[in-house]
Amino acid sequence: MNYRIVVRVLGFLVFFVGLFMAVPALFAWHHRGPDLGALLLSSVLTMAFGAALVLVFRARGEILVRDSFAIVVLGWLLASTFGALPFHLSGALPSFTDAFFESMSGFTTTGASVLVRVEDLPHGLLLWRSLTHWLGGMGIIVLSLAILPMIGAGGTQLYKVEIPGPAPDKITPRVRQTATTLWGVYVLLSGLETLLLLLGGLNLHEALCQTFGTMATGGFSTRTASIAGFHSLFVEAVVIVFMLLAGTNFSLHYHLLRGKPSAYWKSEEFRFYLVIIAVFSALLTAQNLLAGSYGTGEAVRHSVFQTVSITTTTGFSTADFGNWSSSAQLILLFLMFIGGCAGSTGGSIKVLRAVILIKQGLAELRKLLHPRAVIPVRIDGRTVPPGVVINILGFLFLYLGLLVLSTLGMTLMGLDLVTSFSSVAASIGNIGPGLGGVGPAANYQHIPLAGKWLLSFCMLAGRLEIYTVLVLFTRDFWK
Amino acid sequence: MNYRIVVRVLGFLVFFVGLFMAVPALFAWHHRGPDLGALLLSSVLTMAFGAALVLVFRARGEILVRDSFAIVVLGWLLASTFGALPFHLSGALPSFTDAFFESMSGFTTTGASVLVRVEDLPHGLLLWRSLTHWLGGMGIIVLSLAILPMIGAGGTQLYKVEIPGPAPDKITPRVRQTATTLWGVYVLLSGLETLLLLLGGLNLHEALCQTFGTMATGGFSTRTASIAGFHSLFVEAVVIVFMLLAGTNFSLHYHLLRGKPSAYWKSEEFRFYLVIIAVFSALLTAQNLLAGSYGTGEAVRHSVFQTVSITTTTGFSTADFGNWSSSAQLILLFLMFIGGCAGSTGGSIKVLRAVILIKQGLAELRKLLHPRAVIPVRIDGRTVPPGVVINILGFLFLYLGLLVLSTLGMTLMGLDLVTSFSSVAASIGNIGPGLGGVGPAANYQHIPLAGKWLLSFCMLAGRLEIYTVLVLFTRDFWK
Repeated sequence: MNYRIVVRVLGFLVFFVGLFMAVPALFAWHHRGPDLGALLLSSVLTMAFGAALVLVFRARGEILVRDSFAIVVLGWLLASTFGALPFHLSGALPSFTDAFFESMSGFTTTGASVLVRVEDLPHGLLLWRSLTHWLGGMGIIVLSLAILPMIGAGGTQLYKVEIPGPAPDKITPRVRQTATTLWGVYVLLSGLETLLLLLGGLNLHEALCQTFGTMATGGFSTRTASIAGFHSLFVEAVVIVFMLLAGTNFSLHYHLLRGKPSAYWKSEEFRFYLVIIAVFSALLTAQNLLAGSYGTGEAVRHSVFQTVSITTTTGFSTADFGNWSSSAQLILLFLMFIGGCAGSTGGSIKVLRAVILIKQGLAELRKLLHPRAVIPVRIDGRTVPPGVVINILGFLFLYLGLLVLSTLGMTLMGLDLVTSFSSVAASIGNIGPGLGGVGPAANYQHIPLAGKWLLSFCMLAGRLEIYTVLVLFTRDFWK
Repeated sequence: MNYRIVVRVLGFLVFFVGLFMAVPALFAWHHRGPDLGALLLSSVLTMAFGAALVLVFRARGEILVRDSFAIVVLGWLLASTFGALPFHLSGALPSFTDAFFESMSGFTTTGASVLVRVEDLPHGLLLWRSLTHWLGGMGIIVLSLAILPMIGAGGTQLYKVEIPGPAPDKITPRVRQTATTLWGVYVLLSGLETLLLLLGGLNLHEALCQTFGTMATGGFSTRTASIAGFHSLFVEAVVIVFMLLAGTNFSLHYHLLRGKPSAYWKSEEFRFYLVIIAVFSALLTAQNLLAGSYGTGEAVRHSVFQTVSITTTTGFSTADFGNWSSSAQLILLFLMFIGGCAGSTGGSIKVLRAVILIKQGLAELRKLLHPRAVIPVRIDGRTVPPGVVINILGFLFLYLGLLVLSTLGMTLMGLDLVTSFSSVAASIGNIGPGLGGVGPAANYQHIPLAGKWLLSFCMLAGRLEIYTVLVLFTRDFWK
């Protein structure tokens, strides 16, 4: 491993994180908030640390496969650690574990919070909390790729490791241009949502925070009651539409901007994504009507919102689905394992993987009847090589393995089965709220210390698609 | 499809089931039980129906791939239907749903029971209940292969469809001889266990019933308290050893009989099977000691018994693990997804599949670091072809799909999440007791009517390894 270049790139990353902390400091200054000092101090400390690394470790050379794994995993750990400083130094979250949990939950776009009352946080910290979502959503390393010219050939590998989803395509031949394009589309859509939310009556601070939570499929809100706190059908509708857009492969939006809207309908993954949303919205609506707790309009409104929010792994809520019938809860729990499209900001297993798995399952059934036939799995007309299918199934297996082991860890801390399982599922899938003790009306404050660290690990493993994190634990990596 | 030959083979199968009903009738006659009439009537009706089919459909010809799926699935459905007659006609289980559930649970070696008090059943019916386990354990169709000379070339296909586990090897080149050998080993081990249980103080009826439950990894007992009802460490030890033997690939026992005991240690699957049992027994013991509800000796005794019982998918119990800590319950729930070895009478996913999945997962991690390397997965020194890996991963995916959909079905009937999930897991895995409302101290009596049918379907799908049952629902099959 080329340690010097790894450390140098990490230095740049940390510096950027510190730079972005200046934005919430502006809000704190404007509102004369008690968090101004902590934000400024954190910003300066972080930038100084990053700059020191960059200045001390002057190295050139190529970033190899091994280096890129180290950069991405350590980069995310450092970002979350420094990102925790404002919460910790301001005294808002006196326990460093809590501050780190909130920061990791932010960067990984999970949205699980230890805050009992979100409104207690001053403006600056609230914005920083939401900004971590936004930085993590499209990826801090992808952002660096767009800004830093120094990362040469290794950039493609870094991009592949950080962008969610199997076999992500570069939109343009040069990775730097792809990174710039993705961040461009991301900024554009974020601007659009902010504008619409301003029109919906939110102030700039609220509009930005909800936008960051939406576009990153994060889920942190400025209200304890989440989006329900705004009591506005218009706001809910805007959030639903932008959650859907954020859960879509961003290369499709890019094609739209280039005048090719047909790209959406040509994508099997996108079509399947819409079918999932439609079918499960209908199922949930039926469930909620059967349970009789809502009128028809309310049932549709809450069911569609929760379906989109969980499928895209955002985690915003307009209703306490922890009180819904056990079948409705199971549907939501199931949706936690699908997630957004590949190349979106959504987490979890990803729609593309689900489509390939289903097609492979059907192909296996047909193979039983025609033992000698070769039945390929096709996506968008192209055959998926067996190696990719095995990779996806291997991913699924590791995903479930991590799920089971972490759930076991949570039960060992004395938590019940539903809370343990759903908190882990919501963390690995980067969703946020779970069921039981961590439902949408509750929070993660009461989780034991060790549990918060375990869930933080799950969030990181989930955001970086498990392989990336686990590879650092193999003997091969350290050879 | 060659309907005539399918129906003819089914006729033979049904006839055999009727013939075996005469055995419990003997016990009923000996004990002058109230069930004698019902058993005789059921036996005669079943044999008559089977004989009629055989006599009317006189056909010759080869059994093709498609035919074999129809024979196995319909054969199991018919066996379970006729097997329900004694329970139903005797009035012991007045609801036919209950009688069918008990019979299906028997043949599939699940061991889930609707009986509130097992001791209420007369001797004959108790023996029939356990005998269904024994017939289903090694397979009624494999038994027919051993007995019927008429099934020619199609026999290999039938064997493959019914014997549990991926890519089962024929021990001898001729499938009829393989079937005879397997049943021979099965009868021998069953005789041995019966003898030991007789030495342990059980009477012949009790010894036979517990043996059938053990060797088939079924789990029906003659006591409501299951094996705990005998209050004998010796009986528990015998049952543990024979559960372990029943969960082992029977071809290994065959090699032992031929003087090659080294076959056990050469089998990676067998070694892994023992490691699983050892590790999880230790984990459970630690859990139970931490919880402080048992002394050291008791903790070891109950933990080892429950680990072996659940891993082998038997489902006998010596303690109400529904009252254990949530982490201990989760460990048992996890074990429900491993199961016995391929080619054993155990159900669930099978150790061999788990070994291949773990090796594939590790290979994928190494591939990340060496993108161009070819890293094959080997079992017992032989490379596993990618097609087999995909097939196994596809199986896992269908297994989980069935699990989720069926759990959803159970919650729709108003059952809680833990009861719904564990009853389905215990049914597909052919285990028997679950957690919550279907824990070892409870039973399946209170499950709604539709739930009993759904779980019966899960048991059948689990016993025939899902593909076999699902293939009948494909358009290709009916073309």
